Amino acid sequence: MSLSVKCYRCGEHYDDDARVRCACGEPLWIDSDPTTFSWDDCRDRGGMWRYEALLPIDQPEGVAQAAGGTPLVRSPGLDDAAGARVFVKDEAENPTGAYKDRGSAVAVPHAVATNDDVVGTVSYGNMAISTAAHATSLGRECVVFVPEGTSSVRLELIAQYEPTIVQVAGNYAKLYADALDLSERLPIDVLVSDAPTRISGYKTALFEICEEFAPAVPDVIALPASSGGFASGVWLGIRELERAGVIEEPPRLCLVQTATADPLTRAFEAGAMDPTPLSPGEIGDTIAHSIGNPDPPSGARALTAVRDTNGTVVSVTDDEIRTAQRRFAVDGGFCVEPASATTLAGVSRLADRGVITADESVVLVPTGTGFKEIGTKETAVAAETIHRDVLRDRLETLLAR
Amino acid sequence: MSLSVKCYRCGEHYDDDARVRCACGEPLWIDSDPTTFSWDDCRDRGGMWRYEALLPIDQPEGVAQAAGGTPLVRSPGLDDAAGARVFVKDEAENPTGAYKDRGSAVAVPHAVATNDDVVGTVSYGNMAISTAAHATSLGRECVVFVPEGTSSVRLELIAQYEPTIVQVAGNYAKLYADALDLSERLPIDVLVSDAPTRISGYKTALFEICEEFAPAVPDVIALPASSGGFASGVWLGIRELERAGVIEEPPRLCLVQTATADPLTRAFEAGAMDPTPLSPGEIGDTIAHSIGNPDPPSGARALTAVRDTNGTVVSVTDDEIRTAQRRFAVDGGFCVEPASATTLAGVSRLADRGVITADESVVLVPTGTGFKEIGTKETAVAAETIHRDVLRDRLETLLAR
Ligand SMILES: [Zn+2]
Ligand SMILES: [Zn+2]
Repeated sequence: MSLSVKCYRCGEHYDDDARVRCACGEPLWIDSDPTTFSWDDCRDRGGMWRYEALLPIDQPEGVAQAAGGTPLVRSPGLDDAAGARVFVKDEAENPTGAYKDRGSAVAVPHAVATNDDVVGTVSYGNMAISTAAHATSLGRECVVFVPEGTSSVRLELIAQYEPTIVQVAGNYAKLYADALDLSERLPIDVLVSDAPTRISGYKTALFEICEEFAPAVPDVIALPASSGGFASGVWLGIRELERAGVIEEPPRLCLVQTATADPLTRAFEAGAMDPTPLSPGEIGDTIAHSIGNPDPPSGARALTAVRDTNGTVVSVTDDEIRTAQRRFAVDGGFCVEPASATTLAGVSRLADRGVITADESVVLVPTGTGFKEIGTKETAVAAETIHRDVLRDRLETLLAR
Repeated sequence: MSLSVKCYRCGEHYDDDARVRCACGEPLWIDSDPTTFSWDDCRDRGGMWRYEALLPIDQPEGVAQAAGGTPLVRSPGLDDAAGARVFVKDEAENPTGAYKDRGSAVAVPHAVATNDDVVGTVSYGNMAISTAAHATSLGRECVVFVPEGTSSVRLELIAQYEPTIVQVAGNYAKLYADALDLSERLPIDVLVSDAPTRISGYKTALFEICEEFAPAVPDVIALPASSGGFASGVWLGIRELERAGVIEEPPRLCLVQTATADPLTRAFEAGAMDPTPLSPGEIGDTIAHSIGNPDPPSGARALTAVRDTNGTVVSVTDDEIRTAQRRFAVDGGFCVEPASATTLAGVSRLADRGVITADESVVLVPTGTGFKEIGTKETAVAAETIHRDVLRDRLETLLAR
């Protein structure tokens, strides 16, 4: 079941869905036909599979079936911090705690149905965890390429699904190109960050947001940006709903990057069509380790998405990310990873600049849970010890404060 | 907005929903009227709030709105390990990673709307995390009572929502009774494990399962059992659907306990109506620290639920739990905490005994994510390091194996 793939930039088609990139150099996505789609065509089922009519595979069983269908909630507690009317689309509520499951839920079952290759992935983060989980649940071997020196906690997260983990020495940023080459030459199917089947899965996050707002649309959708894959999927979703006549004005896509590695922000501010890859010396450390790709393979497509939707790209510092992560927890009740907290920090910056106004509805998309990173902080938690016998007396004083 | 509460055992009513226990000693739950309910009355909205018609409060905004609505998926990869046709109801996909959010989503907004008291909870686990998250998101102070010596990782998980954490020295198991007393005498509303408003929230898990199976019902629902609160909520749901005429034969409730602290299993096997509290000397260490209440406040009600539905109670060892946790990850793609893995271990035992047969549909309810506990294992992960330059050669060998 090979699917037709298409280039967003030059319009070229290929009848080969194993092909990731166009001859022009840009990434491909799957060409589906939404022209007759309406919300009435949604299936009465949970998760992302209610949009099966627009997806390249039928709903699988198992963990893939559990992907998507995350809550979108109005979160007034975060309005002050954001400077806008905040909605939270909580992608942490996916089976492996990240939006990556939407992509894996399409890409992995499709790969398993199409060939006998081992499934692979290039990631030491959420994509590795998700791909390994989806592959093993289908009984398919999986190889995960992580950078040399990956932390033991990260390895343990991935290892629970028992893939073969390969630590790669040398320039890890070059592994995207290696992966395409290896997939072509060896019996391995490396599902990179912007594999066309993944992008199809990602578009369902946009469908869910728009279906809840229908017939209106939110003013802004704010996403963390790294490889540009998720932004591409969201943009694909927007384009399909526009072609279906389901939405008219698109939401503005606002991408947020960590200031330590922000090729998309640099390109956007310079008015460039294509981001310039950062050299290793230009990349700093960040707590937002899930993002910060120095050479985003779908970077130009993500920039096009931003321009096409009248959106923007903004960078935030680690200090801003820490503050935003705390606000997500304390004002919102959401435990998000630093990469996801960028969305709130970025929107706050944009509100300060007047690019977003207080009456606008902004959907923040925390893409991954913070629970995977607990226990890594060094600050001790203050907690008084009180004996049960004197609890009432002590509590009386505490409550009177 | 005080709600009428009722005793399942003696039938007594009280017009005071701050009252947790009946004069007869048993816990109370909220008396709602499902007699005219049908699935058509479900609201077209996400999460547990589609059952608003049967809930004691209207849908709140914020994190409470994000509770419930978890996926129920057919998971054939787990059939062999279970010895039955497995469905997984993944309660880890809640905002704080556990089913506790269903209870907090009702109990905390109700408390905030009813009084000005500080919200409290007695827990060092998922209930503490959930209650603190829901309270802070509504701007309400929260006090969390944890046992002396709670691990720093646990404290960090709770502390991110910035409650006042009180470590209690002395017999922690007695704190349930203390909490009811404190709630009555001080301006604090301690939402214990079986507070009537929590139980109302828990019943929505049963509603979701039954709506997906309708008009059929699953043969078995398997839950971890600790305080008996969740089992009570599920049973309340069953009773309401029976009274509504929506289901006829109830699913059999199978409760699973850790063998290190299993007062419910002991009582069930002895044919006792009420569990006998275990003394501290009778309790062992377990990896399933989320469960194992030596004196479950809703224990007798949980046992009644089991008998009423023709179900059973079974205990499993830590070794069985470890195996089951691995099977959940490797065969299912689900990262569950040890307490949740008991469900698979317990069903496997029951299948061996012939209490569950291979053709029966069994819903396993992993109640909490395993991601909160990553990094606590001592085993190192094996991962070969390969330089990028020789990756293709080395991979060729690897894949040929
Ligand atoms: Zn092209
Ligand atoms: Zn009574």
